[in-house]
Amino acid sequence: MTTTHLLHKIHGQFKMRNGSITDPVIAYETWGELNFRQDNAILLFTGLSPSAHAASSSSNPSAGWWEQMLGEGKPIDTHKYYVICVNSLGSCYGSTGPASINPQSGQRYRLDFPIITIEDIARAGQSVVESLGLTRLHAVVGASMGGMTALAHSILFPQIAEALVSISATARAGPYSIAVRSIQRECIRRDPLWDNGNYTADAEPVNGMLMARKLGMMSYRSAAEFEARFGREMIPEERQSGDPFGIDFEVESYLDAHARKFIGTFDANCYLYLSRAMDLFDIAEHGGSVEAALKTAGAKRVLVMGVTTDSLFPVAQQQRIADGLNDGKREVAFHALNSIQGHDAFLVDMDSFRPILCDFFNCTMNQPGKLRSTGQ
Amino acid sequence: MTTTHLLHKIHGQFKMRNGSITDPVIAYETWGELNFRQDNAILLFTGLSPSAHAASSSSNPSAGWWEQMLGEGKPIDTHKYYVICVNSLGSCYGSTGPASINPQSGQRYRLDFPIITIEDIARAGQSVVESLGLTRLHAVVGASMGGMTALAHSILFPQIAEALVSISATARAGPYSIAVRSIQRECIRRDPLWDNGNYTADAEPVNGMLMARKLGMMSYRSAAEFEARFGREMIPEERQSGDPFGIDFEVESYLDAHARKFIGTFDANCYLYLSRAMDLFDIAEHGGSVEAALKTAGAKRVLVMGVTTDSLFPVAQQQRIADGLNDGKREVAFHALNSIQGHDAFLVDMDSFRPILCDFFNCTMNQPGKLRSTGQ
Repeated sequence: MTTTHLLHKIHGQFKMRNGSITDPVIAYETWGELNFRQDNAILLFTGLSPSAHAASSSSNPSAGWWEQMLGEGKPIDTHKYYVICVNSLGSCYGSTGPASINPQSGQRYRLDFPIITIEDIARAGQSVVESLGLTRLHAVVGASMGGMTALAHSILFPQIAEALVSISATARAGPYSIAVRSIQRECIRRDPLWDNGNYTADAEPVNGMLMARKLGMMSYRSAAEFEARFGREMIPEERQSGDPFGIDFEVESYLDAHARKFIGTFDANCYLYLSRAMDLFDIAEHGGSVEAALKTAGAKRVLVMGVTTDSLFPVAQQQRIADGLNDGKREVAFHALNSIQGHDAFLVDMDSFRPILCDFFNCTMNQPGKLRSTGQ
Repeated sequence: MTTTHLLHKIHGQFKMRNGSITDPVIAYETWGELNFRQDNAILLFTGLSPSAHAASSSSNPSAGWWEQMLGEGKPIDTHKYYVICVNSLGSCYGSTGPASINPQSGQRYRLDFPIITIEDIARAGQSVVESLGLTRLHAVVGASMGGMTALAHSILFPQIAEALVSISATARAGPYSIAVRSIQRECIRRDPLWDNGNYTADAEPVNGMLMARKLGMMSYRSAAEFEARFGREMIPEERQSGDPFGIDFEVESYLDAHARKFIGTFDANCYLYLSRAMDLFDIAEHGGSVEAALKTAGAKRVLVMGVTTDSLFPVAQQQRIADGLNDGKREVAFHALNSIQGHDAFLVDMDSFRPILCDFFNCTMNQPGKLRSTGQ
């Protein structure tokens, strides 16, 4: 990936819930222009693994992770909005995290990095907003871990964002998702090459990362999608392994191909920290209960979305967010989509997600007489 | 576990789908007495990991894996039926499998064992029936892998069993369950101690087995049960690890405790073979389609059960078995239970399963004036 992100350096100590770090940097990208009234900015948080490169731009034309949703003429129309996407604190795409050099020691942080919380990530994102001189946002937006972070932002900084979009997220991590992530982390931690976080660049815990990613792919999609896409198809006989336990079913080949693309692109320690941050997330810490916390959120307009086939963040969790925010003081829209793609639907089922986001962000693509987006 | 099983030795070559083995042994246990007409025998197949010890007996009073379902005064009443439970071919509780000594080489089979199919397991079970001089069975019964095996038995030996009970099984493995098992196997295969199947008794691939079992536990239960049982509870602070990625949530502790009980009790190579056998199972091989194959099953009375929260063997798969068998030539009962315990419900949700099995096996515990079973 071409490195085209901007860097915001937070000078001095950045206090986190469980410690502090010195002079951290947050990487971000922007699209569009700030308007005269400075009220058209959107802050976008990401899921666990993406960088700040949410969409292509003139400086980096490669497709971003939300390419079909963000850009000129897209549902989040950068003709209209100034969009800022931040690489999460703790990630490894420009922002400071466990893989970064600790300026105080000259060594990588590795496991000396403080435990990261979703709230820490939200505060790091807000520091970028402030560094740009912005005192308000049109919206804070995120999906998956990003949706949790957007929610945290709306509670920590209720005066900033006019609107909140939380997609396939939760107000508190549930035990099933904690269990999935715990097993993923344990796959990494039990890889001898992990070496308690002290692996070297030429001997990373790739086996552990492979297993974690395969398990991730399973939890991100749905059984119904696997059934429809793969059934019991085998890969072509000439590619079959001959190994009785090899990768011979198409579904196995699919998981393997995706996992192999992932390893080498994401740092194992960063993965562990961000994964645990999701487990630790419980908005109830901000008010005593989920419902009490949600009442303190600042957004006046809210869009909550989820997918009925999502096993990692079941749709009831999004319903709970919507219900809790729907306290009469704001406009709340809730959509439970029937996409077959489970948790990942926001990345792939554009036909379902696009019109709703377009409507929320008052984009022009759905309006009669305008050209519909063909950016697929 | 006290070894109290009986052994049936199959003399000579036992032909499997992909090879043959010499003089294999099948371990089994029996309960009750064969009646004069020799028509009260029930053949019980197990899931992947249990032994033939389905219930306590005078020779082995320890509780069996289906203790509450099988025994005197239980739904499968051993006052009335002569029950034979076989340890699957390929397992490691007395039956010949990859951990057994190959009499031809004097060495353990390990990966020299032929690939095992569910049909091979059914035929090995049938060989026990024949060794007992039985030409018919009152029923063939199984849950999970055992339910697949019972179905295979009913198709391979349509003249033998009068009735079929298939619980939380499928007529063909679906891609989601194949993916879960593939990841479990890969956790074992990537454990350096697995050593391509050549591990020694004092250095088994315990890390891989731990991860496989944890993933198994997740797939055997349901998110709803985890939510109800564990929520976000943490283990007592004094037992917390201090490790930022340690086992601190109750749900993590639960998975860890169950997985640690499992390792050391089951051979890793046997696990791989039986796990793959499930992937390979597709009843359509016996007739061109699932429906055509099911029509060839022999049972006149059929009970098919499943659980709506089962993500590994979704209830639609049991519905398909029931529909396919319901061809007008037999009596088919289908029950989709709302147990919260997912795939494992047949082992734990006795309140839901007991009355249905009792009814099917005409037990006395449900009848007015009779004492209800309290054997819980």
